[in-house]
Amino acid sequence: MKTDLDALMTARNLDAILVTGAGDHNPPMVYLAGQAHLTGAILIKKRDASPVLFYAPMEREEAAKSGLATRNQEEYPFNQLLQQAEGDLVMAVALRVQKMLTDLGVTSGRVAICGQSDAGAAFAVFSALQRAMPGLTLVGDLDSSVLDEAMLTKDPAEIERIRAMGKTTVEVVGRVADFLTSHRTRDEVLVKADGDPLTIRDVKSRINLWLAERGAENPEGTIFATGRDSAIPHSAGSPTDPLRLGQTIVFDIFPCEAGGGYFYDFTRTWCLGYAPETAQALYQDVLSVYRQVFSQLRLGAPCQDFQQLACDLFERRGHPSQKSSPLTQDGYVHGLGHGLGLHIHERPYFSLAFDNKDYLEPNLVMSLEPGLYYPERGLGMRLEDTLWFRPDGQVEILAEYPLDLVLPMK
Amino acid sequence: MKTDLDALMTARNLDAILVTGAGDHNPPMVYLAGQAHLTGAILIKKRDASPVLFYAPMEREEAAKSGLATRNQEEYPFNQLLQQAEGDLVMAVALRVQKMLTDLGVTSGRVAICGQSDAGAAFAVFSALQRAMPGLTLVGDLDSSVLDEAMLTKDPAEIERIRAMGKTTVEVVGRVADFLTSHRTRDEVLVKADGDPLTIRDVKSRINLWLAERGAENPEGTIFATGRDSAIPHSAGSPTDPLRLGQTIVFDIFPCEAGGGYFYDFTRTWCLGYAPETAQALYQDVLSVYRQVFSQLRLGAPCQDFQQLACDLFERRGHPSQKSSPLTQDGYVHGLGHGLGLHIHERPYFSLAFDNKDYLEPNLVMSLEPGLYYPERGLGMRLEDTLWFRPDGQVEILAEYPLDLVLPMK
Repeated sequence: MKTDLDALMTARNLDAILVTGAGDHNPPMVYLAGQAHLTGAILIKKRDASPVLFYAPMEREEAAKSGLATRNQEEYPFNQLLQQAEGDLVMAVALRVQKMLTDLGVTSGRVAICGQSDAGAAFAVFSALQRAMPGLTLVGDLDSSVLDEAMLTKDPAEIERIRAMGKTTVEVVGRVADFLTSHRTRDEVLVKADGDPLTIRDVKSRINLWLAERGAENPEGTIFATGRDSAIPHSAGSPTDPLRLGQTIVFDIFPCEAGGGYFYDFTRTWCLGYAPETAQALYQDVLSVYRQVFSQLRLGAPCQDFQQLACDLFERRGHPSQKSSPLTQDGYVHGLGHGLGLHIHERPYFSLAFDNKDYLEPNLVMSLEPGLYYPERGLGMRLEDTLWFRPDGQVEILAEYPLDLVLPMK
Repeated sequence: MKTDLDALMTARNLDAILVTGAGDHNPPMVYLAGQAHLTGAILIKKRDASPVLFYAPMEREEAAKSGLATRNQEEYPFNQLLQQAEGDLVMAVALRVQKMLTDLGVTSGRVAICGQSDAGAAFAVFSALQRAMPGLTLVGDLDSSVLDEAMLTKDPAEIERIRAMGKTTVEVVGRVADFLTSHRTRDEVLVKADGDPLTIRDVKSRINLWLAERGAENPEGTIFATGRDSAIPHSAGSPTDPLRLGQTIVFDIFPCEAGGGYFYDFTRTWCLGYAPETAQALYQDVLSVYRQVFSQLRLGAPCQDFQQLACDLFERRGHPSQKSSPLTQDGYVHGLGHGLGLHIHERPYFSLAFDNKDYLEPNLVMSLEPGLYYPERGLGMRLEDTLWFRPDGQVEILAEYPLDLVLPMK
């Protein structure tokens, strides 16, 4: 967690962390500066020192809200830098960063780079900076930066924010369930008061409304998928599709605090009115694997063990899995879960890749989401909750909600 | 615009464009692939050829919705790549990109890199790719990539989407005006039905709700700032502040299509009930500059000319400006406007930096937003509309709304 950051920097032999980008929807900046309305900033944290936030002049008061030491980027007048760089914008920006680092005494050693940015701009600016400061080693990582490692475990304040987003999520899920089941039907299709079929677009529009009412944001959308769409894990659902009794609906909702804060992740699969036998059978398999895996989660075990376990359990029930058929599109086709926090997907991962060394440890927050998918049969099924590994070793679901498949119509 | 892309690639001697990142909230990917629910993809567009979208296997149907040629990333099995890279994740990802480029015949020449990504990951992966493919030149740009240049002018479909977001914006602004003016007051402070003061948090929560109702998203928040906050252009407003009659409110709203599509940008400054003389005087100055600049906008002129003009006009009225005092925090302290589209800020820019070569051309969409700021007096004032330079040379405000300062209470 955040209090481990200096120790993690020492372990990686890092002298500083440099975060670039906006103050919102930018996990590294939100993590270190809080959520400030900054369109572009540079934050530099030296090891064993507090971060310094370099702000654009119009954003001085937003920067000050971070509580960090702040410096005005205009201390390094940009037109002078541009002249020095002979009009090369990339070089001018690199020179400005060089001056910031130099003023903070960071002129040698290793500096980790992070923050949301355009990939080409980052490649160009940090390549130029690396050439300009050959005594520094700029370090970039994929999903395994020093901040990713700090974020892997959550402190009590972070747990409370994720729990609050969980409460918002299940409140909205409850409203969706009430909304759906209170519709009348015609030929097994849900219809609105005006007689038109209720569509997935209508449902998603309500979801966004109910999330906004509660101060949440939905930057990555919602999966509300029926039929064949439900059978492909990341298909989001077709907006104009109507809703039919007995059809499976995969409802995967993953909102975050407004401005790009902490996420929650949650999935239920529903059949309205009744469930056909095929759906019921699939549901029993997913529910059983969910419960068996949940009951065996224990601190200290490698995450891969549980992916293996889920594959074995599904295969024992006659479903293909990634374990024996890595490219299968039928059966159990994805990872068992993932960490979440300021990213909807972050460490720990459950993938079977040989470099995955993640294991279950106290203060992890992760999704548990076994599922089964049969695209040719138009059938998908997933159940997902967000779990917290408490320091006492207990596993807690951060927002409880019934796992029922069938929602009886009112 | 998009149809110019191959010509722009030729002019820059680019053989391909490589876009990385998610399918939403990622302007280059949205521009070339439409808005698809992709958590991570690679798009490669060769010059004079259609783009190819490499998708993660769970996202094959979302990728297919783009209408582009698609390829499964798992054609390059990741565990094999990781072994080849001896467990080095960055190198494994670079090897995968190398294989994609090679399979499309891109093994020499210049490739532009873009797309939202972690800055460190982009620096590491593309540095590794550059080492692995020395015959290629990877190109990164700041605000001036080939895609930025294509995006500078909008086609008719883009204009209609921005116009629709403008309609949503002014509808919500109208609701906010009705909402505010229908409150009763106590000692000049707006109070709610329960007798508590109405706060900025209350107002912003309604704004998000009314935007969500209309299918819009508000990823960068809203500026609704009073008093001293209004006097600093990017201060977003203090959530617990009440609203008082006669106080200036800077209301800057910039929503986008859900999922990170086209933006609109709009500001009004309001005084509820009445405006003190100091606010009225400032308002007359801003309104006059807004109208004079608007009336002089003409195709073919450098953008900087209008920033100079605005500075001169404000200085003639006794206000400091960036022109004579580049670091001033009083008076006219920011640029006259900026382009917008899939980014809230994009080219053209109006900055006085000597490398700014932008000029007014047909099919630009830009904000026009003169303003005055006096932090020590707690006073700020800005008026902003989004304009379209029509092919016939006319300038059109994409969503009309009264410029009034005073909103009479009902």
